[in-house]
Amino acid sequence: MRDNPRLQPPGGEELLAWLRHYRLAWLSGDLVAGLVTAVMIIPQSMAYAMLAGLPVQIGLYASLLPLLGYALFGTSMSMSVGPVAVTALMTAALLAPLATIGSEHYLQLAIWLALLSGALLFVLGLLRMGFLANFLSHPVISGFISGASILIVLSQLPHMLGLASLPASPAQLLAEWQPVNSLVLGMGLLALGGLLYARSLLAGHLQRLGLSASAARLLARLAPILVVLLGLLVTIGWDLGARGVPVVGSLPAGLPSLVWSTPDISTLRALLLPAALISLVSFVESVSIAQSLARRKRQSIDPDRELLALGTANVGSALTGGFAVCGGFSRSGVNVEAGANTPLAGVVSMLVIGLILLTIAPLFAWLPLVVLAVVILVAVTPLIDVASLRRAWRYDRREGLTLACTAAGVLLLGVEGGIVLGVGLSIVTQLWRGSRPHVAVVGRVPGTHYFRNTQRHLVETEPQLLAIRIDENIFFANTKAIERAILQALRDYPDTRELLLILSAVNHIDSTGLDMLSELSEGLREKDINIHLAEVKGPVMDQLEDTDWIEQQVGEVFPSTYIAFNTLSEVKRPSDPPPQTA
Amino acid sequence: MRDNPRLQPPGGEELLAWLRHYRLAWLSGDLVAGLVTAVMIIPQSMAYAMLAGLPVQIGLYASLLPLLGYALFGTSMSMSVGPVAVTALMTAALLAPLATIGSEHYLQLAIWLALLSGALLFVLGLLRMGFLANFLSHPVISGFISGASILIVLSQLPHMLGLASLPASPAQLLAEWQPVNSLVLGMGLLALGGLLYARSLLAGHLQRLGLSASAARLLARLAPILVVLLGLLVTIGWDLGARGVPVVGSLPAGLPSLVWSTPDISTLRALLLPAALISLVSFVESVSIAQSLARRKRQSIDPDRELLALGTANVGSALTGGFAVCGGFSRSGVNVEAGANTPLAGVVSMLVIGLILLTIAPLFAWLPLVVLAVVILVAVTPLIDVASLRRAWRYDRREGLTLACTAAGVLLLGVEGGIVLGVGLSIVTQLWRGSRPHVAVVGRVPGTHYFRNTQRHLVETEPQLLAIRIDENIFFANTKAIERAILQALRDYPDTRELLLILSAVNHIDSTGLDMLSELSEGLREKDINIHLAEVKGPVMDQLEDTDWIEQQVGEVFPSTYIAFNTLSEVKRPSDPPPQTA
Repeated sequence: MRDNPRLQPPGGEELLAWLRHYRLAWLSGDLVAGLVTAVMIIPQSMAYAMLAGLPVQIGLYASLLPLLGYALFGTSMSMSVGPVAVTALMTAALLAPLATIGSEHYLQLAIWLALLSGALLFVLGLLRMGFLANFLSHPVISGFISGASILIVLSQLPHMLGLASLPASPAQLLAEWQPVNSLVLGMGLLALGGLLYARSLLAGHLQRLGLSASAARLLARLAPILVVLLGLLVTIGWDLGARGVPVVGSLPAGLPSLVWSTPDISTLRALLLPAALISLVSFVESVSIAQSLARRKRQSIDPDRELLALGTANVGSALTGGFAVCGGFSRSGVNVEAGANTPLAGVVSMLVIGLILLTIAPLFAWLPLVVLAVVILVAVTPLIDVASLRRAWRYDRREGLTLACTAAGVLLLGVEGGIVLGVGLSIVTQLWRGSRPHVAVVGRVPGTHYFRNTQRHLVETEPQLLAIRIDENIFFANTKAIERAILQALRDYPDTRELLLILSAVNHIDSTGLDMLSELSEGLREKDINIHLAEVKGPVMDQLEDTDWIEQQVGEVFPSTYIAFNTLSEVKRPSDPPPQTA
Repeated sequence: MRDNPRLQPPGGEELLAWLRHYRLAWLSGDLVAGLVTAVMIIPQSMAYAMLAGLPVQIGLYASLLPLLGYALFGTSMSMSVGPVAVTALMTAALLAPLATIGSEHYLQLAIWLALLSGALLFVLGLLRMGFLANFLSHPVISGFISGASILIVLSQLPHMLGLASLPASPAQLLAEWQPVNSLVLGMGLLALGGLLYARSLLAGHLQRLGLSASAARLLARLAPILVVLLGLLVTIGWDLGARGVPVVGSLPAGLPSLVWSTPDISTLRALLLPAALISLVSFVESVSIAQSLARRKRQSIDPDRELLALGTANVGSALTGGFAVCGGFSRSGVNVEAGANTPLAGVVSMLVIGLILLTIAPLFAWLPLVVLAVVILVAVTPLIDVASLRRAWRYDRREGLTLACTAAGVLLLGVEGGIVLGVGLSIVTQLWRGSRPHVAVVGRVPGTHYFRNTQRHLVETEPQLLAIRIDENIFFANTKAIERAILQALRDYPDTRELLLILSAVNHIDSTGLDMLSELSEGLREKDINIHLAEVKGPVMDQLEDTDWIEQQVGEVFPSTYIAFNTLSEVKRPSDPPPQTA
C-alpha cells in the first residue's frame, strides 16, 4: 500500500516543484483527470454562478485562470479550485445589500469582491498569516457549513417549483400554480431521482457489470453531466423554453476577455469586510480539503503557500470577469479518483473548459434552471452535517451548542452574523472553561512518589502542610475562582502552617494572576502561614524570577512535590516565620 | 495587631448582619466617621456633578439615598458610595451624543441612566452574575482608569483658566485673554498649591505640632473643605462673581423631592449600552475597593451582594434626581480613617448632607468653579498610574501593551471604545499565549523518577521511545502548532516506534484538539508507530473515556511517566502493532 516515494510528486517548499521534477509517468493520469474533472465542473460551475445570483457563464469564466493560478503556488497535488457552493452563497448574501441581484453593478461588485479577496489572501500569505485560520474551531466550521448548506437548499426551492420566488403562503402557492410548474417540478424530481441513484447505487451496479471499483465510482460521479445533457435534449426537443419552463437564456460564445478595473475608494471600503469574510472561509475550507487529500498520499501542505495560491486564483478569476473561488470538495474528489498526480490536471481542465466555451457553450442557453438547482441540491445536502453535531454534543455540550448556534446564526443572522457569533462563542467557551479551574488538595499515595487528589484517592496528608495543585493557567478570568478555592481549602484544613502550591499544570500566569497571588500571600503572612511552590515549569519560572512576589513572599521553590513534602513535613517550625521581615 | 473577632462587625451572608448584631461600642466611631466623611464628600460631590455636566446640587442629591441603599445590602463595612470621578466622566461621555450638556433633557437622561444601571446591577445580583467582572483583567482596569483620569484632567483645564472651552491655538488664547482669566488662574494655582501641600506635607507638620498620626492624616484629608470655604469667603467678600469669575450660580435650598419617571422605549434602548458599561465599571471599581478595605480588616466581600447593593444605591440616586454612583476610593479612605465600623457611618453622612442641603446649601452659589476644578484635579491625578504600566510591561510586554492600548483607546476612541478594545486585547492575548504552546521532548533525569526537557537538562532517552510533554491545554487555537511540534520531534527522532504523550499540564482537550489527535494517530499507525498517554488528569480522562480515539487508537494510558518509561523501554516489540486492528 505504501507508494514508492521517488514516484510521488513533491509538495514542499520549492516553488513549482511538481513542474521542475515532472515525470512522464504522471502525464496520463493528469490528462485523464483534467478531462474528467472538466466535464464534472461544467454543470457545477454554472449552477454555483446561478446560486451567486450571476449569469451562468460567469461560473465557467471562474473555472479558467484560477486553475492556472493555483498551479503556480499551490502545495496540494490534487486539489481542484473553482466556484464552490459556500462562497457562491456568501457572494450573494454579502453583495445583496449593496446592489440589485442581476444588475450590471452587481456583476461588477462580484468581480471586485473576488479581486479584493484575492489581494487580501495574497498579502496574508506574504505576511505568513496562515495561522489566522486556527481561530476557527471545528464546531464553528462545521456549524457554518451546515447552516450555509441549509440556506442554499432553501434558496433552490423556487427553482424546483419554477417560481420566481417562494410564495408567502400555501394559498398563494395554489393561486399561482400553473401546469408549467407541475412540469418543472416533475423534471426536477426526475433529475433528483437520477442523481440520487447515481450517488448511492450506480457505482455498485456498474461494478456488477464488470467495471473496476474506481472506474465505476468515477462514472457515477459524472452523472450530473448526463442529467444536464438529458435536460438540454428534452428542452430543445420539445421547445420547453417557449412553453414557460425557466431556462438559462442567452449565453455568449467565446472566451472572456481579460479586463482590469479598480473599484473606487467608497466601494472598496464597502467590500472590505465581505472580502475578509469570504477570504477566511475560502482559506479554511481549501486548507482542510488540501490537508485531507495530502494525508491520504502522505504529502504535506504549507498553509502560507496556500494563501498565495488562493490569492492568485481569485485575482485570476476576477481578471476574466469571474467571481470568488476556492478549493472544492467534490471536484477535488473527482480529480483524485480520476488519477490526478499534479496541478497539471487542473491546467488540462482549464483548457477543456476553454474549448467548450469556444464551441458548444451557447447550447447551454436551453438548459432548464431546475436542472442546475438539482445539481446544487445533490451537491450540498450531504454538507448538512448532523453527525458532527451529535459527536460534538456527546463530547462536550458547550461545543455542540457552539456548533448549533453557529448554524442557527447563519440561518437567522446571515453568513457574517453566523461566523462572528460562532467565533465569539468558541472564544467565550474557551475562556469560560479556563475560568472554572480544577483545584485539588493532594496527598501522597502511600509508599510512592506520587501525589493525587484527596477526594479521588486514598492518600496521606500532613496536618500542618496543605498541598494544592492548580490545574489551569492562572489568568484574569480565573484568579478569583482560584483564590476562593485556596481560601476554602485553608478553612477545611485549619491547622495549616505551610501552604504548597503545585504548579505542574500551570503553563502561564498573567499579571492579574500574579497580583492575586501576591495579595493572597500577604493575607496568609498575617495569619502566619508560609507559601511555597513546587514543579514550576521553566517558562513560568523565567517570568516569575524577577518579581517581588517570588523574592519577598514565597518561601521555597521545590523541583518536585515529593521533595517539598519531605522537606516541609519534617521541618521543625521556628517560632518566627523564616525568611520574611515583619 | 489582630483584633478580637467578636468585636468585628460581621459582613457575611446574612442581610443587615451589621445592624442585627450592632454593638454600642461601634457607635462613636460611626458617628465621627459619618460626620467627617460628609464634610469631605460635599465639595467632591459638587465637583463630580460639574464633571458630569450637571448642576452641582445633583452631586449632593446623589449623596443621600445611595448611602442608605448600600447599607441595606452591602457587605463592605467601610466603603462609602456616591458620585465618583470615573463614572461622572462616563456619564458625560456616554450622554453627550444623546443630548446637549446642560439641557433639561440631558439631566433627565442622567437620572434615567442611573436608574437603568441600578436596575441592571440589581438583576445581575439576583442572577448571581458577579463573576462577569472577572473578564476585566488588571491591565484593562488600570489602563481604563488612567486613560479616563487623563481625560478628566484635560476636561478641567478650561475651568482652571476661566474659559468656556479650550482655545484652538495659543494665538486665540492670547486674543481671548482678559485680566479676569489671570485672576481665575491665580486662584486656581493657589488652591492647587494648598491642596498639594495638604496632601503631601500637612500631616507631617500637624504631627510635629503634637497631633496623633491618624488625626493628622484625617485633618489633612479634609483640606478640600477648607479650600472651598476660603474660596467662598473670597468670592463673596470681593464680589468676584460680578467681576466675571465663573461661579456655581443659583443653587436651590431644601431636599430633593422623590420623583419616579420611566423612560420611553426608544430612550431605554439608547441608554441600554451606556448603562451596561457604567454598571460594569462601577461594579469592578466598587468591588476592588471593597476587597482591599476588607482585606485590611480580615472581613470578606460577597460580589453578588455587592451587585444588589450598588443596584439599590443607583436606583436610590435616581429617585432623588441624582446620577450614577459607585464606591469611591478617597471617600472610603476617609471613612475608614475616621473610624467607621459599619454602614451606619454612611447613614450618618447622609443625614449631615441632608442637613446642609436644608440650611447653608444656597451659599455654595458663590463658589468659584475653579475651586471645584482643583478639587477634581487633585483627586484624579494620582489615578494616572504609570507605575502599573511599568510593572505590567516588565512582567509581560503584551500585558503592558494591553494596558497602554486601553488607556490610548479611552483617550482616542472614548470610554466605550477603550473598554471594548481593552477586553478584546486581553482575550486575544490570552488566546495568543495558548496558541503558542510549549511542547518538550523529555527524558529521565539519571537515577531518579523525574523527567525533564531534553533541551534544558542532561537526561536519558531510549531510541525507540519518544516522550513528549505538552505544556498547554489542547484547543482550537493551538492544535495545528501542537501537531507540527510532534511531527517535528518525530523527524528529529526517526527511530521512534512508541510515542508517549505526557498530558500532566493538559487540563482540557476540545473537540478540535481531539480531531487533531485522532488524525495524527491514524497517520502514525500507517507508519507503524504506537501512541500512548501518561499522566492524564481525572477530568480530561473522564471526557476522553467514551471517545473512539481512546478506544481504538491509543495503546496504553499510564498513571505516571516513570511507569510508562519502564514499560515501553523494556517491551520486546511484537512484529504486529499490539491491540489495534489493521
